[in-house]
Amino acid sequence: MKKSTGKVSIAVIRRLPRYYRHLSELRQQGTVRISSGALGRAMGLTASQIRQDLFCFGGFGQQGYGYNVEKLRDEIGEILGINRGHTAVVLGVGNLGRALIQNFKFGNNGVGVEAAFDIDDDVIGTSVGNIPVYSIDELDDFLVQHRVDIGVITVPRSVAATMAERLVRGGVKGIWNFANVELKLENAQDVVVENVHFADSLLTLSYMISKPANDDGDEE
Amino acid sequence: MKKSTGKVSIAVIRRLPRYYRHLSELRQQGTVRISSGALGRAMGLTASQIRQDLFCFGGFGQQGYGYNVEKLRDEIGEILGINRGHTAVVLGVGNLGRALIQNFKFGNNGVGVEAAFDIDDDVIGTSVGNIPVYSIDELDDFLVQHRVDIGVITVPRSVAATMAERLVRGGVKGIWNFANVELKLENAQDVVVENVHFADSLLTLSYMISKPANDDGDEE
Repeated sequence: MKKSTGKVSIAVIRRLPRYYRHLSELRQQGTVRISSGALGRAMGLTASQIRQDLFCFGGFGQQGYGYNVEKLRDEIGEILGINRGHTAVVLGVGNLGRALIQNFKFGNNGVGVEAAFDIDDDVIGTSVGNIPVYSIDELDDFLVQHRVDIGVITVPRSVAATMAERLVRGGVKGIWNFANVELKLENAQDVVVENVHFADSLLTLSYMISKPANDDGDEE
Repeated sequence: MKKSTGKVSIAVIRRLPRYYRHLSELRQQGTVRISSGALGRAMGLTASQIRQDLFCFGGFGQQGYGYNVEKLRDEIGEILGINRGHTAVVLGVGNLGRALIQNFKFGNNGVGVEAAFDIDDDVIGTSVGNIPVYSIDELDDFLVQHRVDIGVITVPRSVAATMAERLVRGGVKGIWNFANVELKLENAQDVVVENVHFADSLLTLSYMISKPANDDGDEE
């Protein structure tokens, strides 16, 4: 399978998880094959956009036949790094950290949560959803002793930057940041930060329900 | 101030909350004026993209002078509907619902949370972060008696669709959906659904830490 070369835009990259999600649902429903048109309708994209996106990663489709759902899903999963055995730690076992550990399916996304860390003596030494909770004082040693790819930050905004620095020093490759603050990491060009800004999502919704009814955006 | 006419792309719309966030931070830091170049650097966009984006909404800037931070922030906030007095209810007071009610600043985004609803007798009748928690059985009456613009869904996936239908019947304009399931709403063309898919964010991070180091996307 030939892959196109050159840079892939962040817009395409951000659509890949959506492809993966939709294809996973199709697979669960027992769909074996799907045309770019049908996949597009399910995702709010045009057939042509689907073909262009997937061409960036090497094609996958066959003219007049459509895509094999399971194969396409697995190939996109591979591109997304789902089979790399990524590991993670969760910093902060408040409501949000707990919600993620207990309810979010890290495993479905190829990420194994190894441990959680907090400052609260009431939770240190307990388990949340089978994940052991350690004192934040043990974080640095833990990162030396275990290969941890991703640090999940759900601590308060005020300590997020300090936690991020400790994660970087500990050698993580990525930070999944829920602290609603932009992390400016010094000497950490190789560390990727993915920010989850709930406000951006709510404000988009606010815009959509505020605007005149005939002023739709041009996608999804 | 003249506004450009025609459709605004969803990509631009989705950047507006980021502008709002960055400008709010600049304002807090006491910055009065900023050039498109400096704003672009802070946001990982080019000066030209900033100018194009803001032109969609009527310009704002002045050649050689830059943008007035507070004025631009307020105008973008206005466009985002922050001053519309939007109201919301939260369905589900589990870990995630609780995290949102207690830690997310709805008010900063112009949204007032009026009530929360759950099925758990242990939380019904209590307050979470000053928000009263009612039985889900009272939802429909509440929606008749109060103007509610936004329904926030943090209930389990299995009941999310039913909850969404009740919100639609109750007249909400938007649904902020954390249930990680695509909601297909019948007879609800006017209701906007904003999905928060944690998995999409984590998989983007997974991709970024998996790919060869020299294969960067072309934007933030």
